[in-house]
Amino acid sequence: MSGTGSTPILADSVRMTPEGVDILDRRVYPFERRWVHCATVEDVAVAIEQMVTQSHGPLFAATAGMTLAARETRHAGPGTAAGMLRAAGRRLISTRPTNHHIRDAVTAILSATVDGPLALASGQELAGAVAEAAQAYDAGYRAGVGALGRHAAGLLEDGARVLTHCWGDAFLVAAIQAAERMGKRLEFVCTETRPYLQGARLTAATLVEMGYRPTVITDGMVPSALADGLADVAMVASDRVTMDGHVVNKVGTLAVALAAQAFGAPMYVLAHAPDPLSPSAADVEIEHRDGEEVLHVLGARTAAEGTKGYYPAFDTTPPHLVTRIVTERGAFEPARVSDHFAVPHGAPAADAATGGGPGSAAGAATDAAAR
Amino acid sequence: MSGTGSTPILADSVRMTPEGVDILDRRVYPFERRWVHCATVEDVAVAIEQMVTQSHGPLFAATAGMTLAARETRHAGPGTAAGMLRAAGRRLISTRPTNHHIRDAVTAILSATVDGPLALASGQELAGAVAEAAQAYDAGYRAGVGALGRHAAGLLEDGARVLTHCWGDAFLVAAIQAAERMGKRLEFVCTETRPYLQGARLTAATLVEMGYRPTVITDGMVPSALADGLADVAMVASDRVTMDGHVVNKVGTLAVALAAQAFGAPMYVLAHAPDPLSPSAADVEIEHRDGEEVLHVLGARTAAEGTKGYYPAFDTTPPHLVTRIVTERGAFEPARVSDHFAVPHGAPAADAATGGGPGSAAGAATDAAAR
Repeated sequence: MSGTGSTPILADSVRMTPEGVDILDRRVYPFERRWVHCATVEDVAVAIEQMVTQSHGPLFAATAGMTLAARETRHAGPGTAAGMLRAAGRRLISTRPTNHHIRDAVTAILSATVDGPLALASGQELAGAVAEAAQAYDAGYRAGVGALGRHAAGLLEDGARVLTHCWGDAFLVAAIQAAERMGKRLEFVCTETRPYLQGARLTAATLVEMGYRPTVITDGMVPSALADGLADVAMVASDRVTMDGHVVNKVGTLAVALAAQAFGAPMYVLAHAPDPLSPSAADVEIEHRDGEEVLHVLGARTAAEGTKGYYPAFDTTPPHLVTRIVTERGAFEPARVSDHFAVPHGAPAADAATGGGPGSAAGAATDAAAR
Repeated sequence: MSGTGSTPILADSVRMTPEGVDILDRRVYPFERRWVHCATVEDVAVAIEQMVTQSHGPLFAATAGMTLAARETRHAGPGTAAGMLRAAGRRLISTRPTNHHIRDAVTAILSATVDGPLALASGQELAGAVAEAAQAYDAGYRAGVGALGRHAAGLLEDGARVLTHCWGDAFLVAAIQAAERMGKRLEFVCTETRPYLQGARLTAATLVEMGYRPTVITDGMVPSALADGLADVAMVASDRVTMDGHVVNKVGTLAVALAAQAFGAPMYVLAHAPDPLSPSAADVEIEHRDGEEVLHVLGARTAAEGTKGYYPAFDTTPPHLVTRIVTERGAFEPARVSDHFAVPHGAPAADAATGGGPGSAAGAATDAAAR
């Protein structure tokens, strides 16, 4: 089955307006197309905390939030404006502890402005400069995602039956679009991904929007899907990759990796880059969310009264269960993912996964393809 | 946490009445306590097909169904009555292809009556004889379950944190009651078990009824529960065990077994007995149910439009992923589970798991405890 080539709504789901920012509510999509309007940076922080958006959404929400914060401080004097912007950044970073996208985005915007050349600028000056830095960060991120998509698509065989878990967001969309440009036909099996059903809702809806007809399975059916030949490769995104190749992603990813290993299916992980601030798994805080979520589906009670729920939002997959980690600079053996930083940004070696020679770091990583 | 010692409602959920049989509707329990009234054997067959009851329920529904069939044929002549009873048996067996409980129950009742000494009996005679044979089968089954429970309880450490998948029904209840009698404290983690949520509803409700406060997790959280120390042993029932130790059970069981292996947790499987008619996994038909079930939770749509669902009701766990298979005659190494038939029924060796000597087949099987 081949795609339509269109860009799905979830690839553009955080939109700046003169009045603030509108964020597509992923909690109800695709059953409702509801946009949550945020007039202030605090509104944005609350929206992130309440899971209005997730996966890559918080990154774009954070850059939008910083833009709103700069608007809010435009009448403040130099020192005051800088303090307010830094406080806004801290507020946004505090919303989700595991994913480092927000932290990186906020840090980059502050470094380009009040923590850099514009430390003494007025609120008025900063409003424009922060908006520009935010836009530049978004654009740079999207360019990296495009490169990552090409590397990932290079790993997929024509006719691959791809098993997804949760929602790979822009990474998944970019990989599929790149595979389509390479003329590769793909099929998809999506875990539903309880408790929020991102797989059954976001991934499945986006694949339908792109012209596919995905098969949805429950989270416990991954081994069956591999055993029955419904899927022959697993591809997931990640919320954080440590420098030694541990993959922190939506809870259930480890179960997918164990099943992939048992059935000899490649396990590919998509990540912007490993996190230099996370040497290994012990350096990553796993966010625990309200256990009540596990006792409900879409707001309806599903578990018996008298029970308690347990909801670790993420799990950690060790490097030996992962075939390749695909970043915007190439496809790496998990144990060598820190080589990402040895590949010059934007250098030809960035295409190593789809044709790099054995001399390049990424090329060496992709020599031995799948298990 | 210790239990209350009470018998939960699900342990007595198929009840004969003068007008027919009432079957607790497990599709809505515990949110509703609805009983489906079946006046005829056909009503019972439809109820089984429509999943009103599952796990051990169909066994008791089948024996009740045969009793109803005998009532229906009580005015028929000898040959006609026998033919009608055999047809009723075939109808009941046809309802679920994977689980052999119905087949075994029907075969036993027919062997004790029209396929045995009462081949030429009148409908009137058969009505009483079939009811007696059905009651005897139920009673024998319950006695076996009690023995199985003692063997299973013998494997659990005091303070064990037991992870369950789906609903172990009478086996699980018997194991817990036996463990309580041994003074063992237990805790429970239940997978919710999509798509029907038997874990979140039936297992969890029954554990609450028995005085526990179970933790419910989604099916993808099994590795996390083991990694985080929430559970340290997995215990599931099975729909069929082959003579070479393959375990056919609710889809997701294989995922539990893979996680248990990865974290070094014992994987215990409860089974009445291995199936002599199933030498290995290839001899077991895996039932596929309507994929639409996967796209819904409790009747509400959960997956995007344009998707299809895939629903293998069971998966097959190979022997090397199972620590012990516990039958009513002992706890066996999976590869030696056919030794079950070498243990005399009701002999002292049946207690091998809780104290059998190394000389007995079951005793030898339990010597090397958990991995």
